[in-house]
Amino acid sequence: MVTSDEVIQEEVLREILGLVSRMDLNMSPPLMGQRIHRIIKEKTNQADPYKKHKESSNWLGLKLYPGMRSYVEEAKNPKEAAVQLAIAGNVIDLGVNSRVAESDIHKSIEEALNTPLNGNEKEFFQAISEARKILYLADNAGEIVFDKLLIEQLPIEKVTVAVRGFPIINDVTITDAQAVGLTKLVKVIDNGSDAPGTILAECSPEFQKRFHEADLIIAKGQGNYETLSDEEKDIFFLLKAKCQVIAEHAGCLLGDVILSRSAFGSTKRAVTAQV
Amino acid sequence: MVTSDEVIQEEVLREILGLVSRMDLNMSPPLMGQRIHRIIKEKTNQADPYKKHKESSNWLGLKLYPGMRSYVEEAKNPKEAAVQLAIAGNVIDLGVNSRVAESDIHKSIEEALNTPLNGNEKEFFQAISEARKILYLADNAGEIVFDKLLIEQLPIEKVTVAVRGFPIINDVTITDAQAVGLTKLVKVIDNGSDAPGTILAECSPEFQKRFHEADLIIAKGQGNYETLSDEEKDIFFLLKAKCQVIAEHAGCLLGDVILSRSAFGSTKRAVTAQV
Repeated sequence: MVTSDEVIQEEVLREILGLVSRMDLNMSPPLMGQRIHRIIKEKTNQADPYKKHKESSNWLGLKLYPGMRSYVEEAKNPKEAAVQLAIAGNVIDLGVNSRVAESDIHKSIEEALNTPLNGNEKEFFQAISEARKILYLADNAGEIVFDKLLIEQLPIEKVTVAVRGFPIINDVTITDAQAVGLTKLVKVIDNGSDAPGTILAECSPEFQKRFHEADLIIAKGQGNYETLSDEEKDIFFLLKAKCQVIAEHAGCLLGDVILSRSAFGSTKRAVTAQV
Repeated sequence: MVTSDEVIQEEVLREILGLVSRMDLNMSPPLMGQRIHRIIKEKTNQADPYKKHKESSNWLGLKLYPGMRSYVEEAKNPKEAAVQLAIAGNVIDLGVNSRVAESDIHKSIEEALNTPLNGNEKEFFQAISEARKILYLADNAGEIVFDKLLIEQLPIEKVTVAVRGFPIINDVTITDAQAVGLTKLVKVIDNGSDAPGTILAECSPEFQKRFHEADLIIAKGQGNYETLSDEEKDIFFLLKAKCQVIAEHAGCLLGDVILSRSAFGSTKRAVTAQV
């Protein structure tokens, strides 16, 4: 995508293979991805190899936005429709597939809207109404437009959205949040990190403070799921299961829509319910 | 396939990644495959990791054999049908796909029988009738039963069949040739090498002698095509194009049936025709 120079391509390939041959296989996939993509950026001398793809994903999202917004407004349950669409947008992930066609996005929207959330969205919006500070961890460019539909259904004054600190694959940065008009709607911060997920120890002190202060985290996508699923924090994960390992971990099928609360959050809820 | 011990799996994975990171990318794919599979055999302490798969492929080939033989005998052009089926059998290649289902084989047979060879089979059988010594380079277990159908259409006294010298992926060895009754029909030798192709310099002196003495080579499969296509020898390649690089090199589409003569062979023919 970034260079047709076969000498550089070979150099990138060799360095990545060497890195992977020595890699700690217990590292999370976003940490592995960070290390691999640092090599690509360094060797090709491109700080943002996916720039064009991110721009066209944002453009495509914005093209679909008016239709999706009408759909949400006219839906029997607008909140559920907004959650379904936000998850549908998670198909725009170039860390999993090397390309995402417009038809894949339409298919993902149709599937998500046909997948009932079985009342999980009620628990989700209940937690939102009880929370004082909500941190929304966005995932990919393009997908951020789908997030906007959901964020519009949230109590906006409680919400801060976080994006990645530096370009990494097609993950969302502040540039994308600005491009789709999200920064006008809600407070957006960056996490200071170049990982395609949320590796807390590597995030900026400001981000870490916001994360710890928030009493509810909304985490989009596989990368955030892979890095935060064991965190002692009340987190709702919204994603599509795009690989077999994730599907097995979440107890669903490949391609399924996931809206699930972290173990910590579920325990907290059970205790609250008892009281 | 060979071990469920994750420690060994990780060791194999790391060693192969390290090897590939330093590999000369100008090497032919069968040479790369040889080096990779030597690591697998050594680290898992299994001289023949694909043994069971080869046995079941042979068994499946033998199950299909009576029906295919009747088809050939009753065909309008039995020789063309035999060539088509021999190429169809080339789908049984575990070096390209990690598994081959019985339905894939049926599909491959149907497609091959519906692909006219456009008279190329006439040139092929013309060369066979003019040759004095023919060396038939077999490719994979299971596929060897399909080869038998074609070999039955050849002037058997001129023909020697060569198999690999040692187990490598699911490539055919003398064990398979015996198992499917080929050794009773025709002289079968092994090439002394553990490469999934024919790397002449690594083959036994006896094989090299036979190769040089033969005035016609029939070479089955991608591995033989990848290692012999630049050889100054009259060679007919019979294979299915199972990867994009091969398809482009042969000027056909992925999955296509290929019956093509080496550049050297084609030149020889043109000269003969002029005389």
